[in-house]
Amino acid sequence: MRTQVGIVGAGPAGLILAHLLRRAGIDSVVLEARSRPHVESRIRAGVLEQGTVDLIAAAGLGARMQREGLVHHGIELRFAGRRHRIDLHGLSGGRAITVYGQHELVKDLIAARLADGDPIRFGVEDVRPEAIDSARPRLRFRQDGAEHVLECDFIAGCDGFHGVCRGAIPAGALTIHERHYPFAWLGILAEAPPVSEELIYAGHARGFALFSMRSPTLSRLYLQCAPDEDPDDWSEDRLWSELSTRLAVDGGVALPQGPIVQKGVTGMRSFVAEPMRFGRLFLAGDAAHIVPPTGAKGLNLAVADVQVLARALAGFFGGTGTAGLDGYSATCLDRVWRVQRFSWWMTALLHRFPDEDPFDRRLRAAELAQLADLPAAAAVLACNYVGLPIA
Amino acid sequence: MRTQVGIVGAGPAGLILAHLLRRAGIDSVVLEARSRPHVESRIRAGVLEQGTVDLIAAAGLGARMQREGLVHHGIELRFAGRRHRIDLHGLSGGRAITVYGQHELVKDLIAARLADGDPIRFGVEDVRPEAIDSARPRLRFRQDGAEHVLECDFIAGCDGFHGVCRGAIPAGALTIHERHYPFAWLGILAEAPPVSEELIYAGHARGFALFSMRSPTLSRLYLQCAPDEDPDDWSEDRLWSELSTRLAVDGGVALPQGPIVQKGVTGMRSFVAEPMRFGRLFLAGDAAHIVPPTGAKGLNLAVADVQVLARALAGFFGGTGTAGLDGYSATCLDRVWRVQRFSWWMTALLHRFPDEDPFDRRLRAAELAQLADLPAAAAVLACNYVGLPIA
Repeated sequence: MRTQVGIVGAGPAGLILAHLLRRAGIDSVVLEARSRPHVESRIRAGVLEQGTVDLIAAAGLGARMQREGLVHHGIELRFAGRRHRIDLHGLSGGRAITVYGQHELVKDLIAARLADGDPIRFGVEDVRPEAIDSARPRLRFRQDGAEHVLECDFIAGCDGFHGVCRGAIPAGALTIHERHYPFAWLGILAEAPPVSEELIYAGHARGFALFSMRSPTLSRLYLQCAPDEDPDDWSEDRLWSELSTRLAVDGGVALPQGPIVQKGVTGMRSFVAEPMRFGRLFLAGDAAHIVPPTGAKGLNLAVADVQVLARALAGFFGGTGTAGLDGYSATCLDRVWRVQRFSWWMTALLHRFPDEDPFDRRLRAAELAQLADLPAAAAVLACNYVGLPIA
Repeated sequence: MRTQVGIVGAGPAGLILAHLLRRAGIDSVVLEARSRPHVESRIRAGVLEQGTVDLIAAAGLGARMQREGLVHHGIELRFAGRRHRIDLHGLSGGRAITVYGQHELVKDLIAARLADGDPIRFGVEDVRPEAIDSARPRLRFRQDGAEHVLECDFIAGCDGFHGVCRGAIPAGALTIHERHYPFAWLGILAEAPPVSEELIYAGHARGFALFSMRSPTLSRLYLQCAPDEDPDDWSEDRLWSELSTRLAVDGGVALPQGPIVQKGVTGMRSFVAEPMRFGRLFLAGDAAHIVPPTGAKGLNLAVADVQVLARALAGFFGGTGTAGLDGYSATCLDRVWRVQRFSWWMTALLHRFPDEDPFDRRLRAAELAQLADLPAAAAVLACNYVGLPIA
């Protein structure tokens, strides 16, 4: 079995890369450890940057996203009992975000690829990248009890934080940067109508809370909690009460409540592996970096990576040389670190830290106040939130 | 001896307050522990915000400042071998800073007050604020061996961080917020022409450096150093070599060198005492708060305080009640915390911390890169640097 680019992982990074390569006339095979129903129902991110939306649309993959996605021109910050809207659209020169679940996007991407007749192998086992520092790397794997070898020109490791590709790079060739946070998010999906047409980020004395919506009847809400929080300790009453407290504003409306249909704890981490390439193996998305979810950047960062990678591979196979491939890691990492900074900043701005003191809280309150009354400060948030340009 | 407002301290805060009160028809007496030559030669800050300049000019005290002060429309950031100008003027809606030594301003303020025939008592000893929670507070002090009592309606504690006024407030009535930094500044005054027409802030891998100028023949430069650095360990050669390294840019010009005529280490601290009032004693400037010098904010913050205080006292004596006085602390602290945040941020952005790791350095580099290419980010710096509005 042979292909030009072996792609490990059928998440948004791997699937978008496969589509971009196809449009450049480059063959690829996508290997995915999980089943199709599994990857199509994994609830993950739901906020797409303007650049992500534009890329998907330009690739001809955006029909349902553009029909069903919710375009948001602003977000709301709540703190000190006040609300403050960040006019993303006005402050960023006319850009916006689109709320569209990652699993919905994955469904669209899979359907489009299969319709094209291109291969995605679901349920592969024991994927092993080999000879990655040679001109002929390969992916060994098992499927249906048989051993397979996929000969490639390049391997794209789009297999997420827990995937095998990063681990295939020799110890010592990667520098790992990592930050853990002393809190997590308790997330719920509730059959309740949205309290607001836009996302609400609350920095409350009791901790962070986030309101978002999936549809006119389905809300997704998050609460800052302990890293080892047990969701079973949270009754529906307790959840609604805490959410209502943290999202409250003076004179605000009550939070619509409804049955909670899903509940789970998400950890928080900042992680970067440098460089994002070893030989002919290129890491993209969560395989190379993780951001805390506060800025809604994980998916968007993955899409930016594969956009750079697809262009570099198109250059290589198009005969313009290896400059794009050689620059891949540095180009991506410049953006990765900017997005890490933004995600860290937005996390620190809105969460309560167990070891913080009143000095920390005063500085945070001053920064929130500045966001509310210095338009340039709100514009920095807006430009980062709708997405930095892709280099 | 009796006055309406007893002012402790003949620094910029006390002297400007005395002038503002005079213009409002309010009597004051200024007590100063040091001699006139001492306070007139204390080298301190030298960067005046637009609002500070405007206030001094409006009070009729700005003739020499406007003649001899250097108006700067920008500052330069240097990092990673690159230079980036922050267009303070363009990004802040037409505001600027004025470089004019604090001791020069103090000379002007003293001369103007004495010309008005108003009292400044230099060289007073053992100043004791008393009965500050009564309607008739007083300042006891000794001068020329005799004991004096100054009866006041109000006392303004403008006597700096080490002054007596803050200590006169009962323990428990103040909340103290404090941060120490694991570094200091080694400052020199050199008989060398400026390398640049504008201030240069350098964030170098070896630590922070700052270039500023006093005149066409006198430069003032600073180097991040250890908190317990011994200036005697720094020969002229070593100083110029380190300054040249940290201020270097690719293709930049050599730093003009010359005899070093002054050398000293300045500590770094963030400090806030809350509230800034107890009874009839009002703290202003360094008596209530200290910022690290990176943002050049200490003097400007003191001037903002006394502007609020003068207005509040004018309201009280003008018969409009105590609302201004009652709001003094909260009004000032709102600005104090914003300026603390800015000073902390600019310090963290440009200094190297002993316990930092590569993750911290990457985030810092990303923030510097954003300042260089996201105009809104540069505008946040510019608006803070030229000075926030005074409430």
